[in-house]
Amino acid sequence: MEVQVKNTKNSKLRIIPLGGLEQIGMNITAFEYEDSIIVVDCGLAFPEDDMLGIDLVIPDITYLKDNIEKVKGFVFTHGHEDHIGALPYVLKQINIPIYATKLTMGLIEHKLKEHNLTRTTKRKVVKPGQSINLGKFRIEFIKTNHSIQDAVALAIYSPAGIVVHTGDFKVDYTPVFGDAIDLQRFAEIGKKGVLALMCDSTNAERKGFTASERTVGRTFDNIFSEHTNTRIIIATFASNVDRVQQIINSAYKFGRKVVLEGRSMVNVITTAAELGYLNIPDNTLIDLERMKNYPDEQMVLITTGSQGESMAALSRMAANMHKKVMIKPGDTVIFSSNPIPGNEKAVSKVINELCMKGANVIFQDAHVSGHACQEEIKLIYTLVRPKYAIPVHGEYRHLTAQAGVAKELGIPKENIFILKSGDVLELSDEKACIAGHVQTGGILVDGLGVGDVGNIVLRDRQHLAEDGILIVVLTLGRFSNQVLAGPDIVSRGFVYVRESEDLMEEARSVVQNALHSCLDRRMTDWGKIKNSVRDSLSEFLWKRTKRSPMILPIIMEVDE
Amino acid sequence: MEVQVKNTKNSKLRIIPLGGLEQIGMNITAFEYEDSIIVVDCGLAFPEDDMLGIDLVIPDITYLKDNIEKVKGFVFTHGHEDHIGALPYVLKQINIPIYATKLTMGLIEHKLKEHNLTRTTKRKVVKPGQSINLGKFRIEFIKTNHSIQDAVALAIYSPAGIVVHTGDFKVDYTPVFGDAIDLQRFAEIGKKGVLALMCDSTNAERKGFTASERTVGRTFDNIFSEHTNTRIIIATFASNVDRVQQIINSAYKFGRKVVLEGRSMVNVITTAAELGYLNIPDNTLIDLERMKNYPDEQMVLITTGSQGESMAALSRMAANMHKKVMIKPGDTVIFSSNPIPGNEKAVSKVINELCMKGANVIFQDAHVSGHACQEEIKLIYTLVRPKYAIPVHGEYRHLTAQAGVAKELGIPKENIFILKSGDVLELSDEKACIAGHVQTGGILVDGLGVGDVGNIVLRDRQHLAEDGILIVVLTLGRFSNQVLAGPDIVSRGFVYVRESEDLMEEARSVVQNALHSCLDRRMTDWGKIKNSVRDSLSEFLWKRTKRSPMILPIIMEVDE
Repeated sequence: MEVQVKNTKNSKLRIIPLGGLEQIGMNITAFEYEDSIIVVDCGLAFPEDDMLGIDLVIPDITYLKDNIEKVKGFVFTHGHEDHIGALPYVLKQINIPIYATKLTMGLIEHKLKEHNLTRTTKRKVVKPGQSINLGKFRIEFIKTNHSIQDAVALAIYSPAGIVVHTGDFKVDYTPVFGDAIDLQRFAEIGKKGVLALMCDSTNAERKGFTASERTVGRTFDNIFSEHTNTRIIIATFASNVDRVQQIINSAYKFGRKVVLEGRSMVNVITTAAELGYLNIPDNTLIDLERMKNYPDEQMVLITTGSQGESMAALSRMAANMHKKVMIKPGDTVIFSSNPIPGNEKAVSKVINELCMKGANVIFQDAHVSGHACQEEIKLIYTLVRPKYAIPVHGEYRHLTAQAGVAKELGIPKENIFILKSGDVLELSDEKACIAGHVQTGGILVDGLGVGDVGNIVLRDRQHLAEDGILIVVLTLGRFSNQVLAGPDIVSRGFVYVRESEDLMEEARSVVQNALHSCLDRRMTDWGKIKNSVRDSLSEFLWKRTKRSPMILPIIMEVDE
Repeated sequence: MEVQVKNTKNSKLRIIPLGGLEQIGMNITAFEYEDSIIVVDCGLAFPEDDMLGIDLVIPDITYLKDNIEKVKGFVFTHGHEDHIGALPYVLKQINIPIYATKLTMGLIEHKLKEHNLTRTTKRKVVKPGQSINLGKFRIEFIKTNHSIQDAVALAIYSPAGIVVHTGDFKVDYTPVFGDAIDLQRFAEIGKKGVLALMCDSTNAERKGFTASERTVGRTFDNIFSEHTNTRIIIATFASNVDRVQQIINSAYKFGRKVVLEGRSMVNVITTAAELGYLNIPDNTLIDLERMKNYPDEQMVLITTGSQGESMAALSRMAANMHKKVMIKPGDTVIFSSNPIPGNEKAVSKVINELCMKGANVIFQDAHVSGHACQEEIKLIYTLVRPKYAIPVHGEYRHLTAQAGVAKELGIPKENIFILKSGDVLELSDEKACIAGHVQTGGILVDGLGVGDVGNIVLRDRQHLAEDGILIVVLTLGRFSNQVLAGPDIVSRGFVYVRESEDLMEEARSVVQNALHSCLDRRMTDWGKIKNSVRDSLSEFLWKRTKRSPMILPIIMEVDE
């Protein structure tokens, strides 16, 4: 597959998503032209429900390692975890310069510090509107809007043509901070002729337009004016700096002090404030410790936990496990967020707990999405007028939905590519095709272990979780092949043993019978003995309980 | 608490929810007056996410067993699992007559047959409009509408007053089958004077009115008319007989044959058809085997799996695991359902898989709820005009929302009771108060085991699921107290051992050191030896991996 084509004119641009297309998260895409590779984003994914015990998932970058001499740099679209979160893990494998806007770089630097990578990582802050040259590529950063500030789209110039990658974006004509998305620049680049558009699909199933972030500010003002006599607690995403800004604005307007609570909230907002992305009036932000000096009706608490994460500040408050904040009857609690798919029940649990403590919970109308709906997607396609459409960012259903939109806009079906991670899309002005496939995958991170838990371990965890484990131990004499101790059965996660003594007693005699029938036949192959014990016990338990716990026979051997 | 009051005039009605108030499902409520107890519904709950390996949850009926001489009968509001599902398990503990409408009884009888309880269970079919006398109670069945036919509200007449229990309901002025909810009767009973209203809260957070089931029929007609050239596959709830009726109607109108697929779909629809609740034109319903005789555009498949349940028919089709139905490009697949909270990701997974196979997936506008929204709740309150309001059916947030509606309607705060399972609410015309608490709880069913898995077992399963298990085995000499074999370490669900040999080798020497330090000190208490081994290994593993697998030391003893 690794064909070296010398003739520049005939060289093709290759787009290789190394993650991000089979799931939400883990966004990382390589662009390759001759001797140059640039990589857009380096995100993590959160584990699926069946990835028991896993903390996070990072991309397999074997392809980058194998082509390390070509890799010129990482370019980032914005500072969300699904776009920057895997970077420290990846930098430990390959040391590559990184390029990002100021806030994105600020958030990245926080990670580099944690992983002790600050000194060794070459990095450069780029402003929207600026371009950088990396090998055969020029990359222009274009201002967009999203639920985090300093998000950019990228125009990637190669000898084979221009690719526009939107990153995660929305069109916000009235953003809270800074400028609206630079639609003029999208149009100018569109005029030049764009080979391919890689556009955010997250909301591609939704009709219409995503509302401006500013509308949430008006909702806050309304809620604040209706709840002047109670404490207000607002849960939102730590990274949504504009949201926090608007809460601070409403608080200031209504004469309230603001407390930030939750580790990531304090981290991100501190970084954003230091870099000038947040405008906090004097004496508005106070420490949690000083909250007791103010009456409830003069306080706003901005907290993490809008997704019902069990260890986040709001969840701990709701469960009476927070050291410093107790929910009181009459507290107004606002969820300024929507549950991310999969978190619905966790969020509902927190709402129930808050209601039980007498809080007044508001969970509607205090949020807008950060992603473009269909009309915005149409706008970008119409400005950019790409030859090829490559929907990105979203589950397969979302990519399909964007493909439908692209088709409606007149892009021929054969020019729309729904890629899978690892697909090598070769593009030239004449032709585009999937020309191969490279190794990709999700590497599981569990504690300090990176990649030491795989499918076998996960299958075992699943099995253990379902029905528990029975361990059968016995000691055999080396020469006599006689049972010197055991068989004993120890179980965990199977039944409450003290209340199932009969069952366990019967199980032991089943094991004993199986064992003696093996030994009577002078069987010495431990593998066979173990299998026989396992099978008999398994059959007995299934018949009696309709359950299949893991059965683990262990034989020890002793010199007599 | 069990006070016997002889004076009938002063006797109080006691309402004792034995389940259903802390969660969705497991609805069962006892009504007690002097020597009489009747029980409304007997439902199961589906396991919470942290109930690993559990199949279903049934209520603890200790209170009924302790008062068995008083218990006159079970009365059912409708045939959903969360209202009838625990009955077979409960009937094995107490043999009590049961009363239900025809379809509800049909579905119950199916369960009795499976559990071999048909012969021993006394039962009586009651028509809406009829009443039955049970001890000191008279119970009137009142026609309502819901997402299953033959749903009823109950007017429970006692010497202390009338309680109206709505069951799950909506107001459907134009139902697909049978009559609209008997609002006149609600009004008449309201005129008599109602002591308490127990009203469905499921949709109490939603403004407005729930749309009529009939509107979904029009949606089907529209979809059928727009997709005349493809096969149509529709996933919905097996128990929603009216939904299936409307699909059959559209199919007939557009000249298509209908196949039912999925065990529960076939069960429920067969029962409903036998009992006359379904009107199927001749030659419309065909067997799955005969599907191949018809072109795609003449077929409709009605299937289970609308909640993304991994073993349901649609999920198996989407995953290419269905023996007889393959999803083809162009298939139109309709989700006639909303994901129940907690099922969103599973549903999305199925939609993604269907999209990948080229199906056209429609998952909007082909469903209406079976529960009353705020305006319907207000209507019922206004017709019934209860003295006391007891919101039922829903999570705490929903009960709170209904309490808010009741307050708006002028019911004084102190007359609104949000109960917890086990609360004993004593009611008379003068007074209502929570007068005590009885034993309740969820009993876990895992395979054939009822109640043999409890918190300790679940905690172990959770622990095993998170980080797996390490088993340390060794054989000691009884007299010498010397290690004769081992220590060996066996792990499951911890790390992929072949790729972590160094770690496991080090772990073994940590164990060996701990062990020898015990034996050198002539320690003979096995408990202490085990603790020492567990602690050293645990500390080592945490330091090296930041994980805490379960560690299980097992010592065997051999006569030397």
